[in-house]
Amino acid sequence: MGKDTLELNENELLWGRLFLATTLVQRAREVELSRVNISLIQAMVLYALKISPEPLTPSRLAKMLCREPHSMSALIDRMEKQGLIQKKHDLSPKNLVRVVVTAKGEEAFQRQRSVSAVTNITSSLTREERETLGSCADKLRLTAKELIRQMQPDPYDESLF
Amino acid sequence: MGKDTLELNENELLWGRLFLATTLVQRAREVELSRVNISLIQAMVLYALKISPEPLTPSRLAKMLCREPHSMSALIDRMEKQGLIQKKHDLSPKNLVRVVVTAKGEEAFQRQRSVSAVTNITSSLTREERETLGSCADKLRLTAKELIRQMQPDPYDESLF
Repeated sequence: MGKDTLELNENELLWGRLFLATTLVQRAREVELSRVNISLIQAMVLYALKISPEPLTPSRLAKMLCREPHSMSALIDRMEKQGLIQKKHDLSPKNLVRVVVTAKGEEAFQRQRSVSAVTNITSSLTREERETLGSCADKLRLTAKELIRQMQPDPYDESLF
Repeated sequence: MGKDTLELNENELLWGRLFLATTLVQRAREVELSRVNISLIQAMVLYALKISPEPLTPSRLAKMLCREPHSMSALIDRMEKQGLIQKKHDLSPKNLVRVVVTAKGEEAFQRQRSVSAVTNITSSLTREERETLGSCADKLRLTAKELIRQMQPDPYDESLF
């Protein structure tokens, strides 16, 4: 069962290359973040809360970061216990929960920004490559979102990502 | 604490876009694979074993897929129990273990290939975009590998990925 029986097409081969690159880059970010005691997903929750122009509920966060609602809910509880975020009940309707970054979370966010070799990894590319990479990423994100919607109609319905 | 205090540079913003796209695409692949009862990491182990021109040991697989040796070892044990792969002791030196795909694993590999909307996701891009995307992915993979080597000198030393 060698390579010759595989007959992977051009897109499938590219998929493999993208997957390996992604895995390595995420791993590098995890290693980098471990030096400031923050996990990748925690950093992304803080990032999402910081960049969002509107209040984020747990279910919105779950959609943005592609987590099951129950797993995002557990993550939020853990981060709240660590004092990084807080759940507020000041939205209307009252049963909506808004997640906000605390002062300690803000400090953690700045700490993760202080290790930034991986978040600046694209600085080794040319400007033109960065532009193409960014627009490909956006296209693939939208295509993936559409594919998920087709396969799993409910949970990803009206998300903003 | 609005957007204005963030001052993310161009690369950090691109990092965020890449991370979100990657997360969505991987999630789409997980959803797709769930319909044929295979996990993403299992599919990638089978893929790595299939495309590798040389025998793969558990530690080589761990390096290729960026897993800790103990977690790869547990994954291999589970996949062996499920009959998808087998550990062979026919390398020299004798204590080296070679992981091979079984007939049942081959069948699972073909099954995951039968759901291929996500592995063909780049077909929505132009040929030029695909070429740039592929070469950016390769560059970022090598840069990430180098960053990991700098931060964590030992475990990723002589890997082939």
